[in-house]
Amino acid sequence: MAGAALSTDEGPKVPYYRPIHREVEVFDHAFRNQLALMIKGPTGCGKSRFVEAMAATVERPLVTVACHDDTSATDLLGRYLVQGGDTVWQDGPLTRAVRQGAILYLDEIVEAREDVVVVLHSLTDHRRQIFLDRLNETLTAPPEFMLAISFNPGYQRGFKELKPSTRQRFVGLSFQYPEPAVEAEIVAQESGVEPAMARRLVTFVTKARNLEEFGLNATASTRLLAHAGRLIRTGMPARLACRVGVIEPLTDDADIRAALQDTADLIL
Amino acid sequence: MAGAALSTDEGPKVPYYRPIHREVEVFDHAFRNQLALMIKGPTGCGKSRFVEAMAATVERPLVTVACHDDTSATDLLGRYLVQGGDTVWQDGPLTRAVRQGAILYLDEIVEAREDVVVVLHSLTDHRRQIFLDRLNETLTAPPEFMLAISFNPGYQRGFKELKPSTRQRFVGLSFQYPEPAVEAEIVAQESGVEPAMARRLVTFVTKARNLEEFGLNATASTRLLAHAGRLIRTGMPARLACRVGVIEPLTDDADIRAALQDTADLIL
Amino acid sequence: MAGAALSTDEGPKVPYYRPIHREVEVFDHAFRNQLALMIKGPTGCGKSRFVEAMAATVERPLVTVACHDDTSATDLLGRYLVQGGDTVWQDGPLTRAVRQGAILYLDEIVEAREDVVVVLHSLTDHRRQIFLDRLNETLTAPPEFMLAISFNPGYQRGFKELKPSTRQRFVGLSFQYPEPAVEAEIVAQESGVEPAMARRLVTFVTKARNLEEFGLNATASTRLLAHAGRLIRTGMPARLACRVGVIEPLTDDADIRAALQDTADLIL
Amino acid sequence: MAGAALSTDEGPKVPYYRPIHREVEVFDHAFRNQLALMIKGPTGCGKSRFVEAMAATVERPLVTVACHDDTSATDLLGRYLVQGGDTVWQDGPLTRAVRQGAILYLDEIVEAREDVVVVLHSLTDHRRQIFLDRLNETLTAPPEFMLAISFNPGYQRGFKELKPSTRQRFVGLSFQYPEPAVEAEIVAQESGVEPAMARRLVTFVTKARNLEEFGLNATASTRLLAHAGRLIRTGMPARLACRVGVIEPLTDDADIRAALQDTADLIL
Amino acid sequence: MAGAALSTDEGPKVPYYRPIHREVEVFDHAFRNQLALMIKGPTGCGKSRFVEAMAATVERPLVTVACHDDTSATDLLGRYLVQGGDTVWQDGPLTRAVRQGAILYLDEIVEAREDVVVVLHSLTDHRRQIFLDRLNETLTAPPEFMLAISFNPGYQRGFKELKPSTRQRFVGLSFQYPEPAVEAEIVAQESGVEPAMARRLVTFVTKARNLEEFGLNATASTRLLAHAGRLIRTGMPARLACRVGVIEPLTDDADIRAALQDTADLIL
Amino acid sequence: MAGAALSTDEGPKVPYYRPIHREVEVFDHAFRNQLALMIKGPTGCGKSRFVEAMAATVERPLVTVACHDDTSATDLLGRYLVQGGDTVWQDGPLTRAVRQGAILYLDEIVEAREDVVVVLHSLTDHRRQIFLDRLNETLTAPPEFMLAISFNPGYQRGFKELKPSTRQRFVGLSFQYPEPAVEAEIVAQESGVEPAMARRLVTFVTKARNLEEFGLNATASTRLLAHAGRLIRTGMPARLACRVGVIEPLTDDADIRAALQDTADLIL
Repeated sequence: MAGAALSTDEGPKVPYYRPIHREVEVFDHAFRNQLALMIKGPTGCGKSRFVEAMAATVERPLVTVACHDDTSATDLLGRYLVQGGDTVWQDGPLTRAVRQGAILYLDEIVEAREDVVVVLHSLTDHRRQIFLDRLNETLTAPPEFMLAISFNPGYQRGFKELKPSTRQRFVGLSFQYPEPAVEAEIVAQESGVEPAMARRLVTFVTKARNLEEFGLNATASTRLLAHAGRLIRTGMPARLACRVGVIEPLTDDADIRAALQDTADLIL
Repeated sequence: MAGAALSTDEGPKVPYYRPIHREVEVFDHAFRNQLALMIKGPTGCGKSRFVEAMAATVERPLVTVACHDDTSATDLLGRYLVQGGDTVWQDGPLTRAVRQGAILYLDEIVEAREDVVVVLHSLTDHRRQIFLDRLNETLTAPPEFMLAISFNPGYQRGFKELKPSTRQRFVGLSFQYPEPAVEAEIVAQESGVEPAMARRLVTFVTKARNLEEFGLNATASTRLLAHAGRLIRTGMPARLACRVGVIEPLTDDADIRAALQDTADLIL
Repeated sequence: MAGAALSTDEGPKVPYYRPIHREVEVFDHAFRNQLALMIKGPTGCGKSRFVEAMAATVERPLVTVACHDDTSATDLLGRYLVQGGDTVWQDGPLTRAVRQGAILYLDEIVEAREDVVVVLHSLTDHRRQIFLDRLNETLTAPPEFMLAISFNPGYQRGFKELKPSTRQRFVGLSFQYPEPAVEAEIVAQESGVEPAMARRLVTFVTKARNLEEFGLNATASTRLLAHAGRLIRTGMPARLACRVGVIEPLTDDADIRAALQDTADLIL
Repeated sequence: MAGAALSTDEGPKVPYYRPIHREVEVFDHAFRNQLALMIKGPTGCGKSRFVEAMAATVERPLVTVACHDDTSATDLLGRYLVQGGDTVWQDGPLTRAVRQGAILYLDEIVEAREDVVVVLHSLTDHRRQIFLDRLNETLTAPPEFMLAISFNPGYQRGFKELKPSTRQRFVGLSFQYPEPAVEAEIVAQESGVEPAMARRLVTFVTKARNLEEFGLNATASTRLLAHAGRLIRTGMPARLACRVGVIEPLTDDADIRAALQDTADLIL
Repeated sequence: MAGAALSTDEGPKVPYYRPIHREVEVFDHAFRNQLALMIKGPTGCGKSRFVEAMAATVERPLVTVACHDDTSATDLLGRYLVQGGDTVWQDGPLTRAVRQGAILYLDEIVEAREDVVVVLHSLTDHRRQIFLDRLNETLTAPPEFMLAISFNPGYQRGFKELKPSTRQRFVGLSFQYPEPAVEAEIVAQESGVEPAMARRLVTFVTKARNLEEFGLNATASTRLLAHAGRLIRTGMPARLACRVGVIEPLTDDADIRAALQDTADLIL
Repeated sequence: MAGAALSTDEGPKVPYYRPIHREVEVFDHAFRNQLALMIKGPTGCGKSRFVEAMAATVERPLVTVACHDDTSATDLLGRYLVQGGDTVWQDGPLTRAVRQGAILYLDEIVEAREDVVVVLHSLTDHRRQIFLDRLNETLTAPPEFMLAISFNPGYQRGFKELKPSTRQRFVGLSFQYPEPAVEAEIVAQESGVEPAMARRLVTFVTKARNLEEFGLNATASTRLLAHAGRLIRTGMPARLACRVGVIEPLTDDADIRAALQDTADLIL
C-alpha cells in the first residue's frame, strides 16, 4: 500500500485521496503495530478524508465520532435504552468499533469530556481493552481494530489540551495544506472546475494565507476552494463565488473582507 | 428564479420579499449545489423573511428553529417520549426536515450548545448524513434538503462565535438594512401607511442609525418602522407612534430617548 | 376606551386603576394591532395593576407569570405529568393563555432563562405561533391574545438585558411614579387613610426620592405608602408606621434609616 | 395583646419571650392588616423565638422553614412523590401553611433560590394567592395566614440581597441584642444560673461585642450566653464554660481567643 | 467518667484513647446538657478517635459521616429507594442516629453542602427536631442523642467556613497534637514499636513541625508516626520507614523531602 | 519476594517488570501491614505496570480504575441498574475489590470527584470498612485487600491536590524514569529492537529530557521509546520513527519539534 495513490480502480468504496507526504507509510506501520494514531492539522486540510481512505485501503469499516464538549464516555460506550417498555442495551460507537474490528475515528478529540479520554487509556496500552461496567463485560480489541484521533493544534492553543499521559499513548502525524500544484489538482477533482480556474483559486488562497497581518483566527481551507469551484461550475461569476464561497465563511470583519475581495478581483 | 421579485401571483404561500442585492442568486446556486448557507446580518433586517421566501420559491417546506443557549442536539434530533405508558420516538425538527427534504433554518445558531453544531458537521460535508444513535439509524439527506443558519455578527462580537471548522462548511451571505427608497417601500407594504409617511419614518431611522455617538448596542430595524407604521395607520399620532414603536424598544437610556424623540419630532 | 378612567361601574372585575399619561391609549392601539407590549418602570409603580385593569377593560382573562432565573420554556409551554400512573399533558401558562385568547403578562421577563425569550419570538412576529414539540402541535394565537412583558430598567442595568432581537418585537411604554397629587389620591384609595394623611405621606416619600445622595439602589414605591397608610388606619402612630412600613423595607443602612426617620418625623 | 409580656399563664404552648421594644405592637398591626413581616437582625438575637411567641399569642400554628441555597419553590409548594407504586401529592410547608391559615416563617430567606422569592410575590400583594401548577389549583390565603421572613443584614452585606421588588412587599422590623439588664434576665431564665452569674456573663459579652478591633465577622449571641450558663449550672468552672460555650464557637483565631479568655478571666 | 483514662477493662468496645487536656470533661457536660459539640483541630490529631472513645464510654452507638462537597441533606435524612419494583424508604445516617439515640459524628462538616448545615439548625436549638418532609414526619431526638461535628480550621482558612448562625449552636473544643511524651506513648501503643523508637520518631516529627519555613500546607500527624512505627516493626529500616511513612505522604516537593530526610537520618 | 526480579518463570500472569530501586520492598511491607500505598511519578514511568506486577506476585486479582473528573463514589461503590424490568444491584469496582480481597488501583486519583476520596477514608484507617448506603451494608476489607493510588505531582502542580487529611492515610513512593542502562533494557524487551538501537533511543531521549529550556510541560516517557522501537522493528526508518513515535506525541510546537528532530537525526 505504502506510497501508492489511493484513488484506484478498487471500486466505489475507496474515496479520492491524494497523499501529500509520508502519512500513508506511517498509518501502515501504526496499523501493523496495533498502535493508535493522533492526526494534527488545521481545519479542512483533509484529515477526515485521509482516515476514510485508509480505512477503505485496509478494508475495515470506519466509525466516525465528531466530539463536542458534552461527548461523554457513555455516549461512546453505550447505554440502556427504554424502548417500548423493554430495556435494551445499545452499543455506543466505540464499543461497536471494537466488536467489529473497525477503524474508530474521534474527530476533534480535545473537545470531548475528560471521561472519554480516560476510557481510551486501557484501549491504547498493552491491554487493548475496554470495560463496560453496565454489562460487567471486558472487551479486548481484535488486531485489526485501530483508534485514530484528530485535533487542530492551532485553534485555541493552550486552552484545551490533551494531557501528556494521553498524548504519549499515540503515534503522531502533522498535516498541513498541500503544495499549490497538489491543492489545485484536489480542487479541480472535487469541484469539477477547469484546472486553470482551480489554479487561479489556489493562487488567491495562497496569497490570503500569507497575509498574516489580517489577524484571522483561521486560514482558508481546501474545502472552501472546492465550494467556490462548485459554484463557478454551475455558472456563478468567479468573483461572487469567491466572496460567498471563501471570504464570507472566513471572516465577519468588513475591512478584511474588502481586502480579500480586492485580492480575489485581481486574480480572477 | 434568479433576480426576479419573489412576491408573485403564485398564491398565498409565497410571502412578500423584496430582494436587495444578489442574495436570491446566491441561494439558488447554493441550493443547486447542495451547499449549506450562512446568513449574517443585524436584527430585523429580513434574514428570516428571506429564507421564508426562498423556501416558498423552491417549493420546499420550511422548518425554523430559534436557537438559544440550551438548544441541544437532542432537541434537534428527537427523543423518546413517554406518552400514556408507551414510549414513542419523536423526530426533532432537524430529523423531520431531513426526512421531508425541507429547508431547515437555524436562527441565531451561535446561541446553541456546541453539540448542535457538531451534529451539523456530517450533514454539511460530502456525507450529508445524520446518525440517530437512539434509533441506530443513519439518515442521508435528499438533494432537495438544505440547511440555512443565521447570526448577527455585530452582537457580542468575539464572545460567542462559530468555530472555523464549522464556518468553513457554509456558503456565506451578508445582509444589511436596505437603501432608504427600498426600505420605505417595505415599510409601506408591511404596515399599510401612506408612502409619504413611510419615507418620513425611514428618514428618521436613517438619521438615528447614523448617530453612532449614541453608543446604542443595536440599530433600529425595519421591523420597528413597520410597527410604528401600523400604529399610525390605526390613528395614533406619528410622534407617539415613533416613541412607543421605535424609541422605547431601542433603548432604556433617558437621554438618548430624548434626543431621538427630538429628531422624530422634527421630521414627523 | 381610550383616555377614560378605568375604575367604572362595570362590576367588581375591573380593579381600581388611575391612568397617569397616555398608557391606556398605547395599550389600546397595540391590542388592536396585535402587537406585543413591553412595560418598563421602577418597582411598585403600578405596572402589574395597569395590566390587570387593561385586561378587565378589554374583557380578556389575565394570565400572570412572575419570572425568575429558573423560569424555563417548559414552565411556560407545559409538560407531561405523571399522575396516578397515567401520563397527562398539562398546558403551561403561556399555552393556556394562547388557547384562551388571554392577556399573558410576564413580569420581570429579564430574569427568565433565555429559552423563554426565544419561545416568544415566533409569537411576536407575523406568525403569532408557538410550537409545542412534545405534542407536535402548532398553536396560532387568536386576534384577542396579547403578550405584555415588564422589567425594571433601573435595577442592575447592564447586567441582565433583553437582546435587541427580542426588544425590537415589542411596542414600549415607560412608567414613572405618578405626580404627587395623583399619588396621594392612589394612597388614600388603597389604604383608606384620610386624604390629608395621604398627602403628608406623599410629601415624605417625594423628599426621600429626591435624596439621591443616599445611594439607595431603589426608591420607595407607591405600594409602601399604601402599607404605611393601612397601618395608620388601624391605629399605629404615623411615625412608627412610616418606619416599619416604608423605611425598614427600603434599606438596611442604619445611617440612611436615621436620616429618613428624621425627615418623616418632621413631616408627620 | 399589644405591649403585654407574652410569657403568661395561658399554658405550655406560649414559649418564654421577653419583648424588647415595640415589636409586639408592629406584629399585631401587620397581622390585622394582613401584611407580611420582614425581621432583620444578627444571629441568635431572638428572631425565631419572637415569631414562635407571636404565633402562640394569636393562636395560629407555626410552620418554620430554614432556607438554604438549594431551597426551591418546589420544596415550599409541594411535589408528587412515588410511594409504594402510587403517585401521591404532598403539600410543601408553604402550601400547608396557607391551607391551615398558619404563620409561615422563612428563616434566612436571602439564602433561598430566587424562585422561592418569586412564589411569595402573589402571596404578598392584594391577591394573597399561590398557584400550584402541578395541581392546576389556585389557593387564596385565609385572613389569619401570615408570612414572616428573617435575615441577618450584617452578614455578607451586599452579597446576597433581596431585590427591592421583593422587599417592598413587607413591613420591616429591626432586632438588636437586648439591653444588659434584659439580656441577663433572659440568660438566667433560659439557663437556670443565678442572676448574679447571668449578669457577669452579660458583662463579659458586652465587652466582647464592643471590641470591634477584633475583626470578628459575628458578635456573640444571647444563645451563647445561655449555653455557658447551662454548662455552669451542671458544675463546669465558669471560665472553662466561657471558653467552650462562647469563645470557641465565636472564632478560630488563636490571638482573639486568648484576648477574649483574658477578658473572661477578669470578670468571672 | 470525667478525667479518667478511657482505655479501661470494660471490654473490646472502648478503643484506646489517651486524654490530652480537659476534653473529656467538656464532652461530659455537653452530653448531660444536650448541647452539640464542635471539635476543631489539624488532620490526624485524634478527633475521630476521641469521639469513638466518648461514644463507647457513654455506651451509645456511634454513627460517623465523612462529609464531602456533595454531601446533601437527602444523604443524611434518607430517601426512597426503588428496590425490586418496590419503593422503600431508607433512613439516612442522621435519621438513624436520632431514632437510636446515637452519637452522630459529622467529620469535616465544612465540606458539606449548605442544606446539610441547615438541617442541623432545628436539631441544635431547643426544639431538637428534624422534619422528614418525604415522610411528613417530625422526629424529636431523645436525650441521649448527641451531635458532634469536626473541622480543621487551619486548612484553607477563610475559604469554606461555617456561618456564625451555625457555629453559635455548638459548644467548642480545640485539639492540638499532644505533648511529645504523650505522643510517644500513643505511637508505641498504636504501632507496637519499642518506646525508644517511638520517642525518636516523635523527636523527628517535632523538629519537622517546627520548621515553619518549609511552607508546608499541613503538619505531620500522629497517624503518620504510627504508620512508620508499623513498618519498622515488620523489619523496614527506620530511615526508609520515615521516608515512605512520613515524608512522602507529607509533600511532593523534592527539596523539602531532602531536608526532612536529612533530619530523619540524623535522629534515627 | 523482596528485591528479586519479578519477571520469573511463574507463568504468563506475572508481567515483565524491572525493579528500579526499593519499591518492591516498600510494597511488601505496606501489604503485610495492611497500609494503603500512594505512588507518585511522571507519565509513562511504569507506575501501572509496577502495580500489575505486584498484584501478580502476591497472587491477588487486580482491579484498575482510571479516574477522571466525573468519577464519583457511586461509580466506585455500585448502583442499582434497571435491566429488563428488574432492578439489579451491581457492585462497583471498589466494592468488587473489597469482596474479592483484590488489589484496587486508582490511577490518577487527583482527578476524581471529592466524594471518591472521602469514601476511601474509612477504608484507610483502622476500620478498613466501606458503607454501602444503598444496600445498608457495611463491608470490612479482608487482610489481603490493598488499596493503591497514583498521581503525577509534576502535572498542574498546585491546582488539583489531595487534601492532607487524605494523603496522611497512605504510605508513599516516588517513581522516576530509570537509569539509561535500565531503560534501554526495558525498551529492547518491550519493542523487540536490537539492544544497540534501544541504547541510541535512550541516548536521544535523555538529551531531550535535559533540554529544560524547551518549556515542555511533560517529558518523553519510556513508553514513547517502546513505540518508536516497535515502528523500527517493522521497518520504519529510525528518524521517521522517532518523529512520529516520540516527537509528535510530545509537543505541537513547530520549533521544539525541529530542534528535537535535529537531535534525533544526529544520534540515529
